[in-house]
Amino acid sequence: MTATDTRRTAGDISALADFGIEVPSWAYGNSGTRFKVFATAGVPRDPYEKIEDAAQVHRVTGAAPRVSLHIPWDRVDDFGKLAAFAADQGVSLGAINSNVFQDDDYKLGSLTNADPKIRAKAVAHHIECIDVMRATGSKDLKLWLPDGTNYAGQDSIRARQDRLADSLQKIYAELDDDHRLLIEYKFFEPYFYTTDIPDWGTSLLHCLALGEKAQVVLDTGHHAPGTNIEFIVAQLIRQGRLGAFDFNSRFYADDDLIVGSADPFQLFRIMHEIVRAGAHLPDSGVNFMLDQCHNIEPKIPGQIRSIMNVQEATAKALLVDGDALEAAQQSGDVLGAHAVLMDGYNTDVRPLLAELRESQGRDADPIGAFARSGYLERIERERVGGIQASWGA
Amino acid sequence: MTATDTRRTAGDISALADFGIEVPSWAYGNSGTRFKVFATAGVPRDPYEKIEDAAQVHRVTGAAPRVSLHIPWDRVDDFGKLAAFAADQGVSLGAINSNVFQDDDYKLGSLTNADPKIRAKAVAHHIECIDVMRATGSKDLKLWLPDGTNYAGQDSIRARQDRLADSLQKIYAELDDDHRLLIEYKFFEPYFYTTDIPDWGTSLLHCLALGEKAQVVLDTGHHAPGTNIEFIVAQLIRQGRLGAFDFNSRFYADDDLIVGSADPFQLFRIMHEIVRAGAHLPDSGVNFMLDQCHNIEPKIPGQIRSIMNVQEATAKALLVDGDALEAAQQSGDVLGAHAVLMDGYNTDVRPLLAELRESQGRDADPIGAFARSGYLERIERERVGGIQASWGA
Amino acid sequence: MTATDTRRTAGDISALADFGIEVPSWAYGNSGTRFKVFATAGVPRDPYEKIEDAAQVHRVTGAAPRVSLHIPWDRVDDFGKLAAFAADQGVSLGAINSNVFQDDDYKLGSLTNADPKIRAKAVAHHIECIDVMRATGSKDLKLWLPDGTNYAGQDSIRARQDRLADSLQKIYAELDDDHRLLIEYKFFEPYFYTTDIPDWGTSLLHCLALGEKAQVVLDTGHHAPGTNIEFIVAQLIRQGRLGAFDFNSRFYADDDLIVGSADPFQLFRIMHEIVRAGAHLPDSGVNFMLDQCHNIEPKIPGQIRSIMNVQEATAKALLVDGDALEAAQQSGDVLGAHAVLMDGYNTDVRPLLAELRESQGRDADPIGAFARSGYLERIERERVGGIQASWGA
Amino acid sequence: MTATDTRRTAGDISALADFGIEVPSWAYGNSGTRFKVFATAGVPRDPYEKIEDAAQVHRVTGAAPRVSLHIPWDRVDDFGKLAAFAADQGVSLGAINSNVFQDDDYKLGSLTNADPKIRAKAVAHHIECIDVMRATGSKDLKLWLPDGTNYAGQDSIRARQDRLADSLQKIYAELDDDHRLLIEYKFFEPYFYTTDIPDWGTSLLHCLALGEKAQVVLDTGHHAPGTNIEFIVAQLIRQGRLGAFDFNSRFYADDDLIVGSADPFQLFRIMHEIVRAGAHLPDSGVNFMLDQCHNIEPKIPGQIRSIMNVQEATAKALLVDGDALEAAQQSGDVLGAHAVLMDGYNTDVRPLLAELRESQGRDADPIGAFARSGYLERIERERVGGIQASWGA
Repeated sequence: MTATDTRRTAGDISALADFGIEVPSWAYGNSGTRFKVFATAGVPRDPYEKIEDAAQVHRVTGAAPRVSLHIPWDRVDDFGKLAAFAADQGVSLGAINSNVFQDDDYKLGSLTNADPKIRAKAVAHHIECIDVMRATGSKDLKLWLPDGTNYAGQDSIRARQDRLADSLQKIYAELDDDHRLLIEYKFFEPYFYTTDIPDWGTSLLHCLALGEKAQVVLDTGHHAPGTNIEFIVAQLIRQGRLGAFDFNSRFYADDDLIVGSADPFQLFRIMHEIVRAGAHLPDSGVNFMLDQCHNIEPKIPGQIRSIMNVQEATAKALLVDGDALEAAQQSGDVLGAHAVLMDGYNTDVRPLLAELRESQGRDADPIGAFARSGYLERIERERVGGIQASWGA
Repeated sequence: MTATDTRRTAGDISALADFGIEVPSWAYGNSGTRFKVFATAGVPRDPYEKIEDAAQVHRVTGAAPRVSLHIPWDRVDDFGKLAAFAADQGVSLGAINSNVFQDDDYKLGSLTNADPKIRAKAVAHHIECIDVMRATGSKDLKLWLPDGTNYAGQDSIRARQDRLADSLQKIYAELDDDHRLLIEYKFFEPYFYTTDIPDWGTSLLHCLALGEKAQVVLDTGHHAPGTNIEFIVAQLIRQGRLGAFDFNSRFYADDDLIVGSADPFQLFRIMHEIVRAGAHLPDSGVNFMLDQCHNIEPKIPGQIRSIMNVQEATAKALLVDGDALEAAQQSGDVLGAHAVLMDGYNTDVRPLLAELRESQGRDADPIGAFARSGYLERIERERVGGIQASWGA
Repeated sequence: MTATDTRRTAGDISALADFGIEVPSWAYGNSGTRFKVFATAGVPRDPYEKIEDAAQVHRVTGAAPRVSLHIPWDRVDDFGKLAAFAADQGVSLGAINSNVFQDDDYKLGSLTNADPKIRAKAVAHHIECIDVMRATGSKDLKLWLPDGTNYAGQDSIRARQDRLADSLQKIYAELDDDHRLLIEYKFFEPYFYTTDIPDWGTSLLHCLALGEKAQVVLDTGHHAPGTNIEFIVAQLIRQGRLGAFDFNSRFYADDDLIVGSADPFQLFRIMHEIVRAGAHLPDSGVNFMLDQCHNIEPKIPGQIRSIMNVQEATAKALLVDGDALEAAQQSGDVLGAHAVLMDGYNTDVRPLLAELRESQGRDADPIGAFARSGYLERIERERVGGIQASWGA
Repeated sequence: MTATDTRRTAGDISALADFGIEVPSWAYGNSGTRFKVFATAGVPRDPYEKIEDAAQVHRVTGAAPRVSLHIPWDRVDDFGKLAAFAADQGVSLGAINSNVFQDDDYKLGSLTNADPKIRAKAVAHHIECIDVMRATGSKDLKLWLPDGTNYAGQDSIRARQDRLADSLQKIYAELDDDHRLLIEYKFFEPYFYTTDIPDWGTSLLHCLALGEKAQVVLDTGHHAPGTNIEFIVAQLIRQGRLGAFDFNSRFYADDDLIVGSADPFQLFRIMHEIVRAGAHLPDSGVNFMLDQCHNIEPKIPGQIRSIMNVQEATAKALLVDGDALEAAQQSGDVLGAHAVLMDGYNTDVRPLLAELRESQGRDADPIGAFARSGYLERIERERVGGIQASWGA
């Protein structure tokens, strides 16, 4: 609580050396709101350029070793070739994200649609994604279900759950033994009355019904106002079903801002639960991913800043004195226990992270290193013509 | 959707003849906010007077046949005698509500407290409540757990879940075969950082771990802003775990206003899910209860109005043309399906309910009947001296 | 409160005969979320076709006499010709809506941008809109300012207010004597940290600084969760600055659902404040407008339903017994006053509105009348080819 | 953004030497929720003991030079004697807080009540408070108006505003030339449908109508979920009407937790607006006050921690490089401007504050200094018998 933190060293955060965060291919393309998608110079035109950009983030941070793909946005003729390209760039391909929100057929739902033909189409799309996994070596199929309704009475809440359970079983049956199905929940949007998987309880119930390979994805922006997210993290870890994070941050709704920019203390509290449970360790099975929209800021620096923010929050969590914390908790010392936690949070961990990076042979300052690399200027110069990648392509 | 509703008759809502709502003994005592509990003339001084008041609600509505008790607020020397008194008044005793929020020992938690002696005390209180159930013939033990923390780090979120699971098992083991343990969840208050059972998912997980006799209680005021409550209703029915409702209404937090006064359309949507699933029928196992605070309005009329509001919402739900609804839903007719639902909601069901009451030999107008009974004037005159019942006694 | 409402007649809601609601041209084009804009058969390709559609709404309801335009979406070579076309169709052109959210220059703000050249461009756009007003005979310039920031520190909150005040003065100075500048506020979106006009207080302060011709626009979907909108209505009427409504409804954020579909009781409470203040009368100066997105439902029927929902809420407000209400309020009869209000709300006004429509020589059932007209089938057949109108065009 | 902050010294935060925070007398008494007020050993029994406790906070922090009083809770026979006692203890008496929420007469409102006799009583109470100000030398009359309604229709929203305006004028007329009337707003509670001063806009309008001596109080816990408070701070400073803060923090509603404990980044952003406008300087006229409830933590340490949290947030705000920030903002460098701000926030200012305290001849560690003083043990030993102070007395 006092100035003793000056004695801390990079050794105290050494667990961060093996802590990797998966980045989304779509973060490097354009994104926006329903009102406008602003264009950005140098944005990738195809999955190869996205991976090239993602690799820059890993190059300067050493903490972004995998890239998630999104199908159909990242569909290529030869996924094996894409995986080899990624390996050449120093990264690997991560989770495969399905997409059931951009086909006119899905206007009233995909896996939950009243029409069995549309449900079958949506199931088939996921089976295609599993094929992509086999080609890329990916192990995680990530499903965010946009389905919902806009008006009371529009469809039966109960029947949609039943249809969803049936569709999920058909997808789950296609998984290989070492595959996982990661099921994401979201409070609202793109529908505004009901959402078919609106909360962690619904996601978990479907996972429990499916089997051990089904796990919950927690997107930090997908909750009702005021929801205590670290409680959900602890709960899902307790159930052995926290499969992955989609990190981002928000002030209002699913704002998809840079993780840690809106409420850095919340991010720290989340990472504290992770660290206390050992879920930050490589074999925990939790896939830490970013899922953000860089609507107005440059995308590669936005991703670098995001990686650094997660690292800083995790470093602070690693500095919390667990024994002192538990002792204060056990003795009912409310302010004392809170102070132990806050001592970790209030520490400036940037020097420690700089030290860690230098010990890995990297630049202490990833943002500066990227700026000095000239990469951004190069892609702005070279990527002219073609169609910039965005959510539509 | 047009004026065809004029052809509707009380026969269309005949299921309401057997639909009973349990009233809480504490609604007849004083209640308020942390700022002030306003006194009210005529308020009961003991459990007998509370039951007397509750019986008036049943007398004029015919729909409030049971009274929930709260221990220790309703502790009496001889619960058998209290049950007999209730029977004389034409009502029966319903759920027994435990209380672990008013003892200084519980400042940092009861069933979740880090101190095993305090947990044991809280478990023992519930065993006392089970004894009361045996004496009164009550079948439902209702547990609202106030436990939580105010500051990050104050206690371990995970450890508290483990302690809670252990405490609940000890309580569950004491239940008789025909008893149920009803576990309520609440978003926040009286603690303001974590709540140990904050949502339906947490409540349900504990129920699933305990066994078939454990069921979830849904209090309509205990959710995050914007939460779709009818979705949760449908989900809990689908899981076979909707044990009970605590009805009330709110604009902001756990306001505990008269049910249906803040958002009557939401109440209708909830009752629509209930009716569609047949959960309004007597053998459904769902205990419909009120849990409200009449801070500024007279308490007995407040309860009568509440019963009528639930009846009106249910009547509207009963009027929804299920076949037309399903047909529109199946065909993807968004506006048509919504319109079928709204036709039920927009119907003025007051004449139908008046007719139903008259067919039961009751006054068509419960509020008027109570006003004309002179009961309120009599208790204001007679209940002088003594200590008025409130949450503290 | 009892069944006396059966004595009510269309005469009780006769004020509705002169109550008109302005419809937005963009409601007839496609709209959606950032995830997807679903295509719809028969959607207009140009402003003329939009007006043709809007005229259908007026034809069957008799209550939608004006159409708002949006610049540049509705830019035509000859606005006088467009106004004449509208008149031929039986409607007139209403408010002119500016657009400063779809130009790459406005990525970091328009009227508040740190760059004076960009501010000047945004001011010039509004002056163009005023020219359109002169050509169309419109009297209201409606300004929804999307400007805001996504990250703390991104720009100076205070400096943006100063720039905004300056830009607004330049626009205001260009208004004709019989023009009004209607300034809308919005809680958030399309930016997610600060919004430059986030609440009624900010909008009103700018109006007060500008002068009498500046008035506030209240969009019912633009508030923080839980905000009491009828309070704001009453407050703005009290200040003489309620210029216009943008009606729609929401469960979560700026959902832009059909007005009255999410919380019909809230709409009634809003119209109750309007009616009590006489602000529903033609000379009140309040412009009642719709601003909605029909993402999944057919657009013309969606607009007809919206008009009917506002009419029904207003009819219910007109039925409230003002004398009885005031007497109960003055005497502190909480439940009695509430009951007087609810008696209006609980009345089924559909028969009265049917009667009113028939007395005007219209079909009692606008939805049915439109369906039977064959208009939808005709435009689906005829409007083939071209580019469907949406927010982009 | 890098490790350059190690070069920072206490000189960079020297403005904190003159930055004082007013503490509330009632923070030292018991407080709680509607469910329970937990008792605490050593709690004061009268205003003198409260001031004695408050003086300890100033002794160890040097930053809490004034104590707010609450009437009637702090009513004494001789306020001059109380002021002299405070001076002896090294502190002075600050704002006088009125109380119109604990009298049965105010059940349906005080300054807004439909009954003119009750309004007159509430006005008279404020005039009594002004008399107390004359006796104590206080310059600020702080008015938090609890008034509101629970049910739609219960009272006229508009009429209540008119009555409020009239009541406020009567109070304002009684102020001395050097007095201020500070008007606080609150989103909800203790009423749950309307609140008569629910937002900054309403508070400001009444201040503008009254005159220069009326100013707005911003309580950080009194807003709708998601509200951007620093925007309101900037707005009120721009209008010259930010009279005072009531600091505390919250996750959900008006939780009244220790300031900075729930969202320390928000507190920093607020203090950034303050510092940028120079409003932290002694002559700014902004009265920085705490208003909190220490329900479960010890009260004096809770207040010390609160003072330190405000100091730390302010220190971080003082470290922000204003020139670099403005340059980045002007050039549209979104991530760069954000990074300049975050560099201040991420700095560990505890060593600087320790240095500042030592330069003032104080202990570097206020929490430790208080613990070592033995004060808490002494009052727990000595304050036996009598009635502990709480909100009721």
